[in-house]
Amino acid sequence: MNLNPDALVLRRLGIDTYQELVAYLRSDSPICRSEGFEAQSRIQVCCGSRHIIATLNVVHESLIGRHQLGLSEAAWHALGGEDGVPVKVKHAPPLQSFSAVRGKIYGRPFTSDAVEAIVHDIAGGHYSDIEMAALITACSGNRMDVAETIALTRSMVGVGQRLYWERDIVVDKHCVGGLPGNRTTLIVVPIVAACGLTIPKTSSRAITSPAGSADTMETLAPVGLDLPAMRRVVDQEGGCIVWGGAVSLSPADDMLIRVERPLGLDSDGLLVASVLSKKIAAGSTHVVIDIPVGRTAKVRSPAAAAALAGRLIEVGTALGLAIDVVQSDGSQPVGRGIGPALEAWDVLAVLRNEAGAPDDLRQRAVTLAGRLLELGGKALPGQGVALAMEVLASGAAWHKMQALCAAQGGMREPGRAAHTHVITAQHAGKVVAVDNRRLARLAKLAGAPKASAAGLLLHVALGTTVEVGQPLYTLHAESPGELAYALSYAHAQEDLYTIEEHP
Amino acid sequence: MNLNPDALVLRRLGIDTYQELVAYLRSDSPICRSEGFEAQSRIQVCCGSRHIIATLNVVHESLIGRHQLGLSEAAWHALGGEDGVPVKVKHAPPLQSFSAVRGKIYGRPFTSDAVEAIVHDIAGGHYSDIEMAALITACSGNRMDVAETIALTRSMVGVGQRLYWERDIVVDKHCVGGLPGNRTTLIVVPIVAACGLTIPKTSSRAITSPAGSADTMETLAPVGLDLPAMRRVVDQEGGCIVWGGAVSLSPADDMLIRVERPLGLDSDGLLVASVLSKKIAAGSTHVVIDIPVGRTAKVRSPAAAAALAGRLIEVGTALGLAIDVVQSDGSQPVGRGIGPALEAWDVLAVLRNEAGAPDDLRQRAVTLAGRLLELGGKALPGQGVALAMEVLASGAAWHKMQALCAAQGGMREPGRAAHTHVITAQHAGKVVAVDNRRLARLAKLAGAPKASAAGLLLHVALGTTVEVGQPLYTLHAESPGELAYALSYAHAQEDLYTIEEHP
Repeated sequence: MNLNPDALVLRRLGIDTYQELVAYLRSDSPICRSEGFEAQSRIQVCCGSRHIIATLNVVHESLIGRHQLGLSEAAWHALGGEDGVPVKVKHAPPLQSFSAVRGKIYGRPFTSDAVEAIVHDIAGGHYSDIEMAALITACSGNRMDVAETIALTRSMVGVGQRLYWERDIVVDKHCVGGLPGNRTTLIVVPIVAACGLTIPKTSSRAITSPAGSADTMETLAPVGLDLPAMRRVVDQEGGCIVWGGAVSLSPADDMLIRVERPLGLDSDGLLVASVLSKKIAAGSTHVVIDIPVGRTAKVRSPAAAAALAGRLIEVGTALGLAIDVVQSDGSQPVGRGIGPALEAWDVLAVLRNEAGAPDDLRQRAVTLAGRLLELGGKALPGQGVALAMEVLASGAAWHKMQALCAAQGGMREPGRAAHTHVITAQHAGKVVAVDNRRLARLAKLAGAPKASAAGLLLHVALGTTVEVGQPLYTLHAESPGELAYALSYAHAQEDLYTIEEHP
Repeated sequence: MNLNPDALVLRRLGIDTYQELVAYLRSDSPICRSEGFEAQSRIQVCCGSRHIIATLNVVHESLIGRHQLGLSEAAWHALGGEDGVPVKVKHAPPLQSFSAVRGKIYGRPFTSDAVEAIVHDIAGGHYSDIEMAALITACSGNRMDVAETIALTRSMVGVGQRLYWERDIVVDKHCVGGLPGNRTTLIVVPIVAACGLTIPKTSSRAITSPAGSADTMETLAPVGLDLPAMRRVVDQEGGCIVWGGAVSLSPADDMLIRVERPLGLDSDGLLVASVLSKKIAAGSTHVVIDIPVGRTAKVRSPAAAAALAGRLIEVGTALGLAIDVVQSDGSQPVGRGIGPALEAWDVLAVLRNEAGAPDDLRQRAVTLAGRLLELGGKALPGQGVALAMEVLASGAAWHKMQALCAAQGGMREPGRAAHTHVITAQHAGKVVAVDNRRLARLAKLAGAPKASAAGLLLHVALGTTVEVGQPLYTLHAESPGELAYALSYAHAQEDLYTIEEHP
């Protein structure tokens, strides 16, 4: 049905639309007219045996040639083409699975088959951003029941890569909702691995936070291992801490998160499916989940945490996971550092049993490690924390961490920022509240996580009584410009720390 | 807080994102790094005293200069800038009104104040597409009550331009959901204007259909009148039929429709607010609304039509409109032509009382005109249709239409397509169903509405008994390529007309 005298050829346009697949065509291209394409048309782009569905942007001027089809970065990578290769475009076929989303909006529960079709289409890139937004909205506000959540979790596992470890017990931990500085992973993994459990940990890089566990680990050792390298490290040391980006564990979830985050909607169903699908796909059998609760944390009340914990346990159990949930204090950052290297220094202090090591980070890590040791059968109920503490105090955990880093490609020392500035208290009193979200934002303005040594070093915690001029925190930056930039934001903030004056 | 050595300057990129405001920055631009912008960040772009909120696309290659800020067409027009003028960008302020949308998703009804804030932000271009998709989803499936719909309608009127006509009675008509060929407007307006009512009709151009009333009218007279010209025509002739695009009657509704349409969600609340806000903004006091009901029409069942009619009357009455609703047959196209000029020929045949004029179009027009004459006090209850028929039969309506066209800039004759092809029945039998949607698509493939003479001329209707080889419809196109293109689609369709063979 191609009546055009001239074929289209691909062109990489280098526009980053953040995973949305966008194609660009000239309005005067023969295909635009003959196919009746308009701006925002959903089109199918075929290149050899591969094809993608993309949203069309019509280009009026001479950004691209009349016979070129431009692609956004995400579309370029999804199609896997080359500049200049011939390509065919047509209207995208109707998205059949979206009719179940419409049904859900009108109050009809999802069937398992419908969920599977939806997840398949999302993983294939067939859902536009607004279609995903409609799906997320339809699932928010407790509109997903347990059966739907189980089906969603199972379907998400089904469309991704899945790891197998040939062991009966494979443990993992996960923290729901970031708390700045909460880098327990880098302490929990060496403790439980030192006790003989298998813990092949895939961590994320920061997306909206100043550091992900993978970013922090990267200041100590390489993390970009592929699957064979990861398997070699785990076989040798019983664990690893690598970046999960090299393996595509739950691609549909990655697509949804991209739209979910800016909407800021809470859906226990989506959150549970997101967390558990990645654990199951990673081959885990026994999982401990940490839910920090606090006014400026992701989960804001104990009641909300309890509901989420119940759903996690119900769905996890249905899918064959042994699962335990820990509610933790989410009222302030953990440890002293915020930013990859600064957090790594905290981790090192704990692992090395240094005198000034941050006790909150140590306590949280041994709590989680203890639960994992009990869940994985290495400690009797109630004795996990003591075992974890012992492994940490004996230096066995530190020894294991060094071995892990060596196996991942060699241990290194985190950087130190060249430019620092101390922010002091403007008046005396007691610290009664800390704004996690704005502290995280400040660390990012200072350059974290891209500048790995950038971030904040905190000098006071909740309950500290401060004098005028006493240091509250130190800004760390790798360039004077970033320091100045963070500083101007810091000065504009009134109450990163809420200090109540004494009468 | 601008610490960058170099300022940004505007650049029109000529990318049509269909009203979504998109800005393009190089990843290596100083501002991207210093502000921590990422792909899909929502940013505020300030140019002199004007500003817009846009979604950021990060550009990796040399599409634009390091110190340029590219804008999509919609962003360019919204900001009203010029190539090369200096511009400032920063993170968009948080969208406060979206918290009410989140509340709605969690089951809390909208307050009037919340609706007003949301509509204000939408009209200002502050909602991203995914935020609008979430709002639309939250309002779909009968989740908006009458009070919310009234608040939404009132707020939509509040943010747009509003017309005043200095008359007690200003009438209007509207058809919910397009039915191909249903061009009653061009007959109703001259009938009721000839009877002395005031009917300043603003019509739309086709968006997804092969012709809007404005497109059809444009084949007879100019329709792109500005407000003073429109006022002059109405003062002189009592009515007009112009394109509504020159006046911005309900800009928030225009933004929502753009996201609503591809999602295909039904929300009586949004539909009622959309229709009534535009009528009120246009200064109407007495309105008749036509709801075609049919399997391939927008409203598919009499029950759905009744619910919609009830909501229209309740909300319209609350906002001071005198309102009447007509359910009509939506099972097949109206008249013979589909496409601007072909529909205009149907209209002319009815107005001129030609022997072969399509009776279905005439009947629908006099039904609606009769209701308007009764509602506007020009006919006693039950006598409107007779009066409308009389005005049509006497030639008074045709005389008025000629006067309207002359006042709008001069009457002209619709074009005739140079290329036609007759599609005939493949087997004998009775026509038992017609697919409105695919006939509309076929007319568009033939070139309608841009090629005004293109489209379809239908030769059979529901219930017709056809022989093998009997003409079903004729394709009309302005170029051989478009004819061939439409023809290949036509040949691929099995059941545009469902013909049941006799035993």
